[in-house]
Formats: sequence, structure tokens, C-alpha cells
Amino acid sequence: MKPFLDKDFLLDTPTARHLFHDYAETAPIFDWHCHLSAKEIFENRQPDDLFELWLTGDHYKWRAMRSAGVPERLVTGDGAPQEKFRAFAKTLSLAPGNPLVHWSHLELQRYFGIDAFLCEKTADAIWAQSKAAIDAGDFRPQTLIRNSNVFALCTTDDPADSLEWHVKLRDSGFDVPVLPAFRPDKAIAVENVGFASWVEALSARVGYAVTDYASLQKALEERLVFFQSLGCVASDQSVASLVPVPTNEAQWNATFQKALRGEALTKMETDAYHFATLQMLGRLYAKHGLAMELHLGAMRNNNTRQFLALGPDTGYDSIDDPQQANGLSRLLDSLDRDGALPRTILFTLNPKDNYVFGSMLGNFQSDEAKSKLQFGSAWWFNDNIDGMTLQLKALANLGVLGCFVGMVTDSRSFLSYPRHEYFRRILCGILGQWVEAGLFPNDDDLLQPIVEGIAFTNARDYFLK
Amino acid sequence: MKPFLDKDFLLDTPTARHLFHDYAETAPIFDWHCHLSAKEIFENRQPDDLFELWLTGDHYKWRAMRSAGVPERLVTGDGAPQEKFRAFAKTLSLAPGNPLVHWSHLELQRYFGIDAFLCEKTADAIWAQSKAAIDAGDFRPQTLIRNSNVFALCTTDDPADSLEWHVKLRDSGFDVPVLPAFRPDKAIAVENVGFASWVEALSARVGYAVTDYASLQKALEERLVFFQSLGCVASDQSVASLVPVPTNEAQWNATFQKALRGEALTKMETDAYHFATLQMLGRLYAKHGLAMELHLGAMRNNNTRQFLALGPDTGYDSIDDPQQANGLSRLLDSLDRDGALPRTILFTLNPKDNYVFGSMLGNFQSDEAKSKLQFGSAWWFNDNIDGMTLQLKALANLGVLGCFVGMVTDSRSFLSYPRHEYFRRILCGILGQWVEAGLFPNDDDLLQPIVEGIAFTNARDYFLK
Amino acid sequence: MKPFLDKDFLLDTPTARHLFHDYAETAPIFDWHCHLSAKEIFENRQPDDLFELWLTGDHYKWRAMRSAGVPERLVTGDGAPQEKFRAFAKTLSLAPGNPLVHWSHLELQRYFGIDAFLCEKTADAIWAQSKAAIDAGDFRPQTLIRNSNVFALCTTDDPADSLEWHVKLRDSGFDVPVLPAFRPDKAIAVENVGFASWVEALSARVGYAVTDYASLQKALEERLVFFQSLGCVASDQSVASLVPVPTNEAQWNATFQKALRGEALTKMETDAYHFATLQMLGRLYAKHGLAMELHLGAMRNNNTRQFLALGPDTGYDSIDDPQQANGLSRLLDSLDRDGALPRTILFTLNPKDNYVFGSMLGNFQSDEAKSKLQFGSAWWFNDNIDGMTLQLKALANLGVLGCFVGMVTDSRSFLSYPRHEYFRRILCGILGQWVEAGLFPNDDDLLQPIVEGIAFTNARDYFLK
Repeated sequence: MKPFLDKDFLLDTPTARHLFHDYAETAPIFDWHCHLSAKEIFENRQPDDLFELWLTGDHYKWRAMRSAGVPERLVTGDGAPQEKFRAFAKTLSLAPGNPLVHWSHLELQRYFGIDAFLCEKTADAIWAQSKAAIDAGDFRPQTLIRNSNVFALCTTDDPADSLEWHVKLRDSGFDVPVLPAFRPDKAIAVENVGFASWVEALSARVGYAVTDYASLQKALEERLVFFQSLGCVASDQSVASLVPVPTNEAQWNATFQKALRGEALTKMETDAYHFATLQMLGRLYAKHGLAMELHLGAMRNNNTRQFLALGPDTGYDSIDDPQQANGLSRLLDSLDRDGALPRTILFTLNPKDNYVFGSMLGNFQSDEAKSKLQFGSAWWFNDNIDGMTLQLKALANLGVLGCFVGMVTDSRSFLSYPRHEYFRRILCGILGQWVEAGLFPNDDDLLQPIVEGIAFTNARDYFLK
Repeated sequence: MKPFLDKDFLLDTPTARHLFHDYAETAPIFDWHCHLSAKEIFENRQPDDLFELWLTGDHYKWRAMRSAGVPERLVTGDGAPQEKFRAFAKTLSLAPGNPLVHWSHLELQRYFGIDAFLCEKTADAIWAQSKAAIDAGDFRPQTLIRNSNVFALCTTDDPADSLEWHVKLRDSGFDVPVLPAFRPDKAIAVENVGFASWVEALSARVGYAVTDYASLQKALEERLVFFQSLGCVASDQSVASLVPVPTNEAQWNATFQKALRGEALTKMETDAYHFATLQMLGRLYAKHGLAMELHLGAMRNNNTRQFLALGPDTGYDSIDDPQQANGLSRLLDSLDRDGALPRTILFTLNPKDNYVFGSMLGNFQSDEAKSKLQFGSAWWFNDNIDGMTLQLKALANLGVLGCFVGMVTDSRSFLSYPRHEYFRRILCGILGQWVEAGLFPNDDDLLQPIVEGIAFTNARDYFLK
Repeated sequence: MKPFLDKDFLLDTPTARHLFHDYAETAPIFDWHCHLSAKEIFENRQPDDLFELWLTGDHYKWRAMRSAGVPERLVTGDGAPQEKFRAFAKTLSLAPGNPLVHWSHLELQRYFGIDAFLCEKTADAIWAQSKAAIDAGDFRPQTLIRNSNVFALCTTDDPADSLEWHVKLRDSGFDVPVLPAFRPDKAIAVENVGFASWVEALSARVGYAVTDYASLQKALEERLVFFQSLGCVASDQSVASLVPVPTNEAQWNATFQKALRGEALTKMETDAYHFATLQMLGRLYAKHGLAMELHLGAMRNNNTRQFLALGPDTGYDSIDDPQQANGLSRLLDSLDRDGALPRTILFTLNPKDNYVFGSMLGNFQSDEAKSKLQFGSAWWFNDNIDGMTLQLKALANLGVLGCFVGMVTDSRSFLSYPRHEYFRRILCGILGQWVEAGLFPNDDDLLQPIVEGIAFTNARDYFLK
């Protein structure tokens, strides 16, 4: 029996241990998609305690606590920090198999040197131990990032954002590049209540009135160029699904005008607008050399009562199940036909679609990059041993695993870098099993570049070359 | 190599064997969803032979036999009992991997002390041996239930049912509670040919004419209160899927009237009626403190020829594949918004939806219960090693496994209790693997309550507290 | 650690090794669905090199190469054969987990006696070694087929095909039966640009003008009878999905006329035509005793640019995700009701539908055959260890595995027979795990007929009895 999360956990063969410890473990991290705040990185404030680091903004933990019957007072309410920490500790002790158990303990081990299991009976001791470590040490964002061997990271930013904190970071001497990523979700979501005010904000940012689809496109392109001036290499968009509706610019423009006037839109109008706007964005990315990330399949803000109380991103999202194959095919083909398909990374939130997405890639590959079309790593509800294993095996079966650009934290926390370690262990575990079963040669000349590629160099080359 | 179904089957680690034999094996069974007949339990008749116990009503076995090419004469036809038994034995010998092989042999071992494998060459000997055991022993329903360590069981009952057999059982001195469960499928299925006559039966039961939607609701609530007086703690509804259609009571009422007059309904009318009626029922359950089970995804009576010959529940149902996420979200949210969401258990027949259902739970949890929203155990076509493993791992990844209310037999047979043993072995097998791989601590203070909770105490506390 | 693809790969237990080497390995191959060319078999030409054998027509390999960033010049373009071979070798070295790695090396081992791993550094040596083997040996189609222990094979043929090469083969003395299979996809795809000219070709073949639906049906039946005179035992149809639309012959006929005139059809017209034509064909198959294969879930020719450049079947197809359950149920039931349901084999390209298809079978079984309804082996994008394991386990859980008709190559290459070996190893691996875990008896009287049945005899009896 292995001790809990020892140095070889998830590495069940000698080959796996060799690949991880000799090639994967020390590879730098290019965290090309996360939700860190450039402002917080710049301000670089020392946190007070583990409550602040763990429980002030992490909807994964909040969901788990609610599932364990913890009252909202101890989740997002006015409970005392240590009491909330105790409730989280108790939740972990009931949650074998949940990745939070592994993530939390990797963070305790790697950043605090704490090896004990966090549960009800150890909660107060670990609280005190971590508090002492924080009081005695440096847990500021820049230090955590630097100590985590981060090569560069990409935040997630609205086109209307000034990127002032990215500018300040660039000029600050912090030596890890913090690159903005272009996330025009608010330009796509024409049906949102806040659409008109977002267009106003964009107008203010570009210095002229965005009044129609053409000026919207112009403004987005200008912002994109500005983003690039600060090192932006990737865009990201999240949509539930893609519905190809044949339309023309006059119609998108009419939809745009209706939205500005606050009029209700039909489903067909929003579908057409979404699809056309993704096409328009794809062309811009191809023109300017940005990669395009598509995150499909989330169903957000399911709980109206709590949405009104707490707002978005508070743990009330789940997995949608629309048909994805045709819409995705039509979007990518329409761009490819015009030579305007950017490098593209497809993420699915619904694991039932792993084989749809994994087989879609092959329709649009070319020599513009090693796997120009990528299958994004297991995302959100799939970011666990089973989900990552399924994604890796689907990709391996359907494509060329050795070209994979690998893992992202997708996190809002400065302590989430061990998720890369977690992913790399799972990857090396799978490769080790294949090698030891005689399903791939035991040849380091082949294995080392595969492991180092997926851990780091593929993503670096994909985004930066 | 392990012998066939020995005492440690499915327990492939020392930890698994410890958890099963020391904590799970002897836990009582709360079988909170089954299809046993209260009448048969009350009448408590000694069966004649294994044919009667196994082959007179079990559509799982019939399907398998038909799949092996057994003629219908030996399935539901006029073949001799022992000849049918031989055909079933031959079927088992061709069906490695089918849970019937395990269920049948667990029943032979646990209830008859027969360890041999049932196949063509052993069929006659096992027939004779089991016949001798039955002739010499007590195989009456109450004895089988009592000897199976059953704490309580919930049958499945129509609101129009008199529950006379539950009353008799309560007064009979039988010491295992046999609780009715409220299954208003016939109130929901407004499109069924028999709807009007079911409304008549309900009218007769409540003693007044149910003539509109308001009186339907009144009658259902009265019946629900009566069910509760006999210990009912759970309701159950089976629908293929949920389609949220905005409507109002005038429309449901119009639909109700059309159905009473035997007029054809449009798909939109039935969808709206189903959705509204589930909302209405959910509110009743919340008001009266009943848990709500939702069984989604069955496509029933696919074979018209055999439906006309044999009726429903004869082995001609299969798995449907509608979109489930949005309808489920809208139903649960509409209830939650009004503070009228009961404790709810979601079952999916289509395993592709495991992650949709597992992630839906987290949108509506609260401190009303440990995991107020539950992911029902692997159901029907998923009630096998692979299906149970997938359900347990999906729940573990997405929620808090330690709060799970666990297994139900969902069976029409008095010999099905070993399915709980089967489930517990799989559960302990998974936990054992995690512990031995260092993915959860080897700490009985944590593991014992998890195992005992999922085996028994969680369900007891969820339904009875 | 096992050496790469040694004699026991995929056989991880003593039982698996016993079952494979003693029962499965030497069983003949009935390859009842492939895309080999009868003309090429008849002409029996010796190939020049491994490029010709591997890279001139295999879209699996092309897709993998494109995914590795190989330029189209080295895929389907004017690159030199050996340069393309090198690019393929490099692709393999990056593709652990891809079945191409295993297929390619099985072919090198079994047909060329080459045990080395094909990668960049060995590419030239293996090119030379294989060239020498080809130059010195007999690699003609008939020899490859005969040496692969093929009992019989079924090609895939259009109803308008003359089958002249099948006639010549029959009369040639080649001792392995090469049977035509009836594939009326072009009769179903009424919406295709080429429909009218296909009807002309059919008219020319039957010797009278096919001018309406009735004469279409007459012509198809005549061709079917002719196919049977050459040994045809199976039909095959590929459709994305089935949409049951209530219609009548007048409407199909109107649709047929519109298509002949080259007029555009509505989705409802094509859906109705597809469904009705599959019903019509099913009745013909039942009448004439042909088995019906249904391949569902492919989305073809996604890349318009490359479709215009290279045509169909060049590596631009992927997996679709329509709803399948209802359409399939309605088709099968409509035939069964009339006693006109032929033996039917259901293939799904989308693995999310494994349990929908696996449970559908049970609705329509009868004693006309052992598993009259079959779940086709893991197809195309699923033809790998994971996909075959999922298909086998789904079938085992839901049906009677021992009645399975097993594997097909589905290939255009004369070197693909080791895919049967691959499948048999996976099958024996799974059975071995079950037996050693005590989940099925260690009894050769049971296991031998199961293994031999799935490997060979079930298919022989299903199609030829």
C-alpha cells in the first residue's frame, strides 16, 4: 500500500516513475489559460491565511461544501474564517475520489510542507500550521508564481478592458510574462441584459461610438491588436453550442441594433448572431496569428435564487448536452474554405462528446502547426483522474498524442499550479502502462520528447512560434 | 486465480476485503425503491420451485434468453417449467459479463447453498437440489426478507391504490416495515389511452369526481397524506425527458379535459402538461416532506407485436437519448426559486448523461440534508459492474461520495437482496483501490463512516430524519 | 516489462494466453464486411513496395500524418514514396496509444518478419528490408488472403455494379469465396447530386427505365437476387440517423421524381424518403434472407476545400451526434410488426450510443438466430483497444456475449487481417480477467465455444445457415 499522496502517487510502474521524475517533473509550466487577476499579481499582496487563499473565491470548494450539507453561512456567508475552514476540512473527509482532495493536499505539501490529511480532527492544527507558515514566509502572488516554475501565463480579459495592470506588470520588472488573452464573450452574447452597456464600455475604450456590426468588428480588431502589443497569443470564447444559421450582415446588424435598444431577440436571431460573430472572430484571429480556444458545453447560472444573491461564477454551473458535431464542423469548415481558420483548441465540458471533438480535429489539420487543431485538456468538471484519462486516451486513439499542447490550470488561485503536476503524473502513468504492457517501445529517444512536449515545449511552440 | 464468486470476489485489495467484511457486509438493507408486491408479502406463500421464483416475472432473464435464441415458448410461453429453466441455464453459460450470471449465482449461494455453476450440464442437478431445498425449507417472502437483514423497504404504488395490503401488513405483526411509495406516473401520462379510466379510479378512491386540474391536485394531495399515514417517505416518477414549456393552469386544464374526452393531444400539450404536473408534484412533496425520485431516459414498449401479446414490463424497453440538461435544470430551479424543491434523487438510464446529472446536483444543494440532491445508483441497464463503477466515480468526481444514499434493488423478486451485496463489493473495491494507490488515507476513522453511510445510514437519515 | 508487441501482448493473464493461443489464434477469419476490391483480387498484382501497400489509399494513415503537421505534399501530394514513408514513420513515433502503431507493426511482423519499431531512425532500414521482402516474395492479394487463413470475405458493392469481377473470381479457381455485399447507399441518398445519374446506371443495368419508386424497388430486388446468385449474404447501409416521418408511397414517389429532375428537397422530404427506403429494403432482405447491416453516426466530407480537391474517403469524416434511439426503434418495430425484420447488425460510430444500441437489440430478438439482432463490433474511430473494450463490455452487460458475430476488418487493404488478431487478443484479455477475478468459471467446456464462436463460428452460422 502506498502512503497518501507520496512522491510516486499515480505512478504505478517503474517506467511511469522514470518518465515523471526525469522528464516531466522539472519541466516549466506554460499556463496558457487561467483566470488569475493581473491586478492581484501586480499588487502582490501577502495573504492572511488559508481561508483567504482557498475559500474566498473557489466555486469548486463551495459546491463540494454545499453537497456535504454545509450551510451557506459557512460557504459564502458571514461565518468566521476558521469555522469555514473546518467545514471544508470535514467535507474533504467525506469526499474520496473528488479531485479537491488531491489538489488541496498537493497544495498543502508543496507550498506549506504539510503532509497530514486535512479532516475534522486535523483542521485546527493545519489551520495553525499554515497560518504560521504564511506569517513566517512569502506567499505573495509573484513569489508563488516564480517558485512554481512558471514560464509564462495567460490571463482572460475582456476586449473593453484597459489592460492597465498588464502594462504595469510589463514595466514592473516581474520576470514571468503575464500575457493577456482575448475573451470576447460579451461581444458574442448579444442576448445578455448587459450587452448595450458593454458596447458603451467598448466605445469608450476605442474612443468612438460602436453603432453597428461593422464598427463592432473594427473596435474588436483594434483591441486585439492592442492585446497583441502586450504579448497576447490566444483568444478564448465560451458558448453552449454552435447553431449554423444562414444569414448575412444586414441581419446581424439588425440583431445588433435590437440588442442595443434592449429589445427581445428570438432564438434564431441569437443563434445566427453567435455563429456569425464566431466566424468574424475566427477570421480576425487567423489574420493576426492568434490561436482560438473554444469552450463548449457549459450551462451557467442554473440556480436563479443564488444567482440573484451571489452573481455568476459562484458554483451554480453545470454540464449542458446540446448536439455539437454539425455546428462545430460548419464553423471550422467555413473558415477553412476561406483560408481563415486559425490554430484552434476545442474544449468540451460534456465528456460524452470526447470522441466527437477528438475526431473533428482530423478534418482540419494542416502543416501550419503540429496538430493545428487541438483537443483541449479535460476541462472543469472533467479535471480529475477519470476525465483526464478519458481525454488523453480519446486523443491518443484519434490523433497524435505527442503533439498535444497539454494542461492549463483554468484557475483563479495562485496555488493551483500543482494541477500541472497532477496532469503530468496521469500522463506518465498512462504512458508507463502502455510501455510496460508492450504497447509502445521502451525507448527514451521516443518517450522523452513526447513527455517533455506535452508537459511544456508543444504549448510553447504552438503559441509562441 | 480466484474461484468463481468466492467470498472475496470483486475485492481485489486487502483494504477492500477489510472494508467489505468488517463494515459493509453486515450493514442492514434499506431498500427504498423496489417493485415488490405488498399483497404477496402479506399472503406469504411458499413457492413451488426455482422456476416460480426466477422465471415467472423477470424481464431481465427473458431478454437474455431471447438474445440467446431461445424460442418464446420457453420464455413466456407454455413450455414446461424445468425446460424453461434448462434454457435459462444454457443462456447463462453463454453470457460472461452479464450481471445475471452474478445475481443468479449469488442467489443460489446465499439462499440455497448451491456453489455449482448453472449451465446446461448442471441444470437438472441444480433444479433438483433447489427443489429439495424449497420443499424442505421456508422460502416464503417474509422469511426471505427477514433473513436478508432488511431494515425497511419501499414498494411502488399508484395514488389510486387502496394500500389495503400495506394496512394489513402493518397490522399483521410482520416486523420489517413495508412502506408504500407514491408513484403518480398515471397522473402525469395524460396522453395514455387509459388516462380517463385512471381518473375515474382516482375519483372512486377519494370519493368525489376529479373533473379538472384543481381537483386532480386536491385528490393527489389527499392520497399523498394517506400514503404518509402508512409510512410513505418517497415518491417516484418515470418520464423519458422534461421539456420546459411556458404555460398556465388554464392550458393544463384544457389538456386535462381533452384527455378525459379521449381527444388526441399535441406533443406541446403533453410536454407542457408533464412539466407542469411534475412542478405541482414537487411542490406537494416539499410541503409534505417527501423525497422525489426522478427516473429519466427509458423508452418503453418498443416492440408493438409483443406489447399486444404480453403487455408492458415484459422485456421490450430500452434506453432513450433525449437532451436532459435544460429540462432538468428548469424544473429544479423553478421549484427552488419558490422554496419548494424537495429532497430529490436523479436517476438516468442513459449512462452518457452521468456527468450531466452528477453536475446538476451541485446547482441545488443546501443544508436541508447531506446531499439534498442525490445521484441515484446505476439503474436497470446500468446495474452491473461497469455501470455502478461509472456512477460511483462520476459522483465521486463531481460531488461528495460519502453522502450518497446508495443502492436499491429496483426488483420484483424476493431473492434480489444480494444486489446490495454486489453493490457494496464494488464500492469497497473502488475505495480499496484508491486507498492502496495512496489516493485516500488508510484511516478507518474516515473510511468506516463512509462505507457504513453509503451501505445504510445515509439512506436511513435521508428518508427518515 | 513486456517487449513491444510480443507474442503475448494484450494477454495479461494465464487464462487470456491460453484462450488466445489455444482457441482464438488459429480460428479462420470470416471477414463479412470489408472494402476490398474484387477487381484487385482478381488481377492479383504484385505490389512494388510498402508505400503502395500502406500509403496510397489509407485515410487513417493520412489523417494521422496531417495531425502530426506533415504537409499534404507528403500525404496525398507528389512527394516521393520513400519520403512519404519517412513522414509516416515519424508520425508513428509521436503517436503512442494510436491503433495505427499496433496495426502497422503487426503487419510488419506477420507479413514481413520485421520486429523493429518503425520511427524516424529506422524508417530507411525498414523501407529497404520490406522492399527486399516484397521483391523476393509473393505479396499478391490472393496470396495474402490465403495466407491469412481467410474462410470467406464480403466486399461492398453498389446495386448497379455488374459484379463482373466477382463472376471472374468465382470462375477463376481462387479457393477463398469473395462474396458481394449489397450496399444501396446511393438508392437511399436521394438528396445527392449524383442521384439521377445513379438511377440511370441502375436502369442500364436492369435493362429498363427506373422511373418511379415502384420500378426502383423492382430493380433493387432484381439486383439483390443477382447478388445472391453470387453468394451475397449481407447488405449494408450507412446513414447519419433515422428520422421516422409518417408518409406514403405517393410522397416518396414525388420526392423520387423531384430528385430525378434535380430539384432541391426539403429536410422532411429526404428524412421521409430515407426512412421509407430503409423500410422497403428491410422487407426485401427479410424476404430473401439477407442480413442487414446499419452503420449509423458518420458525418462525412467535413472539409469542403479538401473534398473538392481529393473527393470522398480521403480522411475528412468524423463522428456525428444525432439522437438515434427513437428512429432506430421505429424502423425495427415497423418491420417486426409485419414479420419482415431481417437479421440485423447495428453499428454506431458515436461511442456515447453504445448503451442505446446495446439495449435496443433486446427489443427485437427471436429464435430465428442466436442474437438475431447484433451489436456490430467497434467501428472506425472506435476500432482500438478502448473502443473494442467498451463495445464488448456493453454487449456483455446488456446481451449474450457468447452469441456475438465478432470482428470485421472494414478495410481497403490486403494487410489488415491482423485486426482480427488484435480483436481476439482484446476479447481473450477481457475473458481472462473475468475468469481470474472469479467472475466467470474457469471451465474450458464453457470458454472454448465462446471464444471460437466469437472468433469465427457465430458469424459463419449467422450468415450462412
